Amino acid sequence: MKSQIVAPSLLTLSVSAFLVFMLNNCGEADTYDKQYQRQLLEQAAVFFRPMPDNAFAEGQEASEELIELGKMLYYEPRLSKSGLISCHTCHNFGLAGVDNLPVSVGHRWQKGPRNAPTVLNAALHSSQFLDGREPDVESQALMPILDPVEMASSEEHVLAVLKSIPEYVKRFHAAFPEEDEPLTYKNVGVAIGAFERILLTYSPFDSFIKGDLDALNEEELNGLETFMSVGCVTCHVRETLGGHTFSKFITPRELSDDVEPDSGRFNLTGREEDMHFFKVPSLLNVAETYPYFHDGSEWSLTETIREVASSQLDIDLTDEELDFLVSFMHALSGEVPEYALKIPDLPPSTADTPKPSFE
Amino acid sequence: MKSQIVAPSLLTLSVSAFLVFMLNNCGEADTYDKQYQRQLLEQAAVFFRPMPDNAFAEGQEASEELIELGKMLYYEPRLSKSGLISCHTCHNFGLAGVDNLPVSVGHRWQKGPRNAPTVLNAALHSSQFLDGREPDVESQALMPILDPVEMASSEEHVLAVLKSIPEYVKRFHAAFPEEDEPLTYKNVGVAIGAFERILLTYSPFDSFIKGDLDALNEEELNGLETFMSVGCVTCHVRETLGGHTFSKFITPRELSDDVEPDSGRFNLTGREEDMHFFKVPSLLNVAETYPYFHDGSEWSLTETIREVASSQLDIDLTDEELDFLVSFMHALSGEVPEYALKIPDLPPSTADTPKPSFE
Repeated sequence: MKSQIVAPSLLTLSVSAFLVFMLNNCGEADTYDKQYQRQLLEQAAVFFRPMPDNAFAEGQEASEELIELGKMLYYEPRLSKSGLISCHTCHNFGLAGVDNLPVSVGHRWQKGPRNAPTVLNAALHSSQFLDGREPDVESQALMPILDPVEMASSEEHVLAVLKSIPEYVKRFHAAFPEEDEPLTYKNVGVAIGAFERILLTYSPFDSFIKGDLDALNEEELNGLETFMSVGCVTCHVRETLGGHTFSKFITPRELSDDVEPDSGRFNLTGREEDMHFFKVPSLLNVAETYPYFHDGSEWSLTETIREVASSQLDIDLTDEELDFLVSFMHALSGEVPEYALKIPDLPPSTADTPKPSFE
Repeated sequence: MKSQIVAPSLLTLSVSAFLVFMLNNCGEADTYDKQYQRQLLEQAAVFFRPMPDNAFAEGQEASEELIELGKMLYYEPRLSKSGLISCHTCHNFGLAGVDNLPVSVGHRWQKGPRNAPTVLNAALHSSQFLDGREPDVESQALMPILDPVEMASSEEHVLAVLKSIPEYVKRFHAAFPEEDEPLTYKNVGVAIGAFERILLTYSPFDSFIKGDLDALNEEELNGLETFMSVGCVTCHVRETLGGHTFSKFITPRELSDDVEPDSGRFNLTGREEDMHFFKVPSLLNVAETYPYFHDGSEWSLTETIREVASSQLDIDLTDEELDFLVSFMHALSGEVPEYALKIPDLPPSTADTPKPSFE
């Protein structure tokens, strides 16, 4: 793969070319080198690909009823034991689908063991959770609801809540028209997962990959070139720039004396070769999903890039390369779909709805 | 005031008239007694009035920039010490502006002392908080941010967060164009308050008061008639059906042996005549803002009405009257404004932004 990466010298050349060009064309609107843009796009097409319209498998698109039900459940705090915590509590659409906390806070103010990854574009990953322990968003969505340090609920509680509210019963029937008893815990996950499959964001970089040569500015293009040339594309590839493979990573904080490093995927497989392995994170919206690393121990994007380049690629990046890469990372951010941002009107509880418990 | 209330006998008469009418006109679309509707509207106009377009004082309308800034701050968890809790956490627009919990849960899972009232239409009340200790939404909004059991923040923390984020600095200047140093703690409240002044909901009852005679169905009309005839209008008047006067109230739970009754407004004034006095709650959206009473101890709207009628009016309501009143209460619900429901994109933190603390 290395041979396909643009040689670093090209970067230096093109920056010089750009500067000369800028000096000659100062003040004009379209001032960037089209040939350089095309060359980079050609190169980038090897590693990346355009974002799809949604994350449904071909021919498996969900109905509007299913997606809307999933959205309601995503925002529904009554699925939690306390009645306070919903998926949206830790995967906040105002904060790029995360909580911007080192680790999340759940039931009874308990801290989770790992940093919450963003829900945005997660449905495009090949597995879910930082250790990849669930295959898809449908199965993933069911786990935090039951986790004692997160929503601390139970399947019984969730179903009792939903069955007690006539509008939910009606909506489950509309969302699963072929099932006689659609109100099952599994279908809660199917619905939330369907909603998550439309939570895709479209970045300037995606526009570039789709052929809009002017979608990235000079800094971002230089960052893209650096990203490919120094080897970030060893792991951060495809439309999500990550989310498909596993890699060993111990954070600087874990390397300090007083913290036990997270065993990562080893906890799941028990295989020594998976010790400290984590899913390579997607870099979409990475500029907004701080703090970084599985323990949320690093707040600086620059330091994160420096550390990952050092530990994973054994490269000491120059300050200029870091600046370019940070600019490129910012070009990976996109807007949360309007539809997802609009808080649904949650139907009221009834006398049969189980009461919340803070204990 | 009692003399102005429709006599209970009118209710019985009109119900009989309606039944005869229904029997004669079964299946037809417009089947309700127009005269009865007009009579009730005339009567209701004595106690109630139409909702305004917003809750700004005449000529004091806020700019779009100020309202949008207020909305961002309303949804902004970084104002809290933990970075997790925003105004919206306890005043959730998916849940009619409340959390539907007996008392709210705040920093370090601490429970608040009283049930959280809805933010919807609150700007129309003559004072804020259940004991009326703040005069308006602008001053009210600043208190939970600093309360150690709620957001547990400090003025310094809030200002340090906002000043560290260039977009907030820019937005404060745009929202307060005449101020040189607009980023003050007071202005945080001014902005959130401006947003709250558009959080009005328009119910079927409001349509009725505005002259749409068909806005209420028969049950709701009977409920309105009962509401006026039994004396609920002694306290629950104007467009908000409450929120303007104070009344003594000790909850059934507090009357049990093991709980100390909340002193209410006495804590504020120190005057014996304010002991156990609370602001008469607005009844707008009351069907969705369970559980009830200042300690959130009653989940049933029917039981709440029964208890209030008994303790405040010394009346034992019949089951039929209760049913009518519950129907009427449901006609006091309205939609949260679309604009408020759309979660704003919160600008990212910078290296200077204070870090959250869970301690």
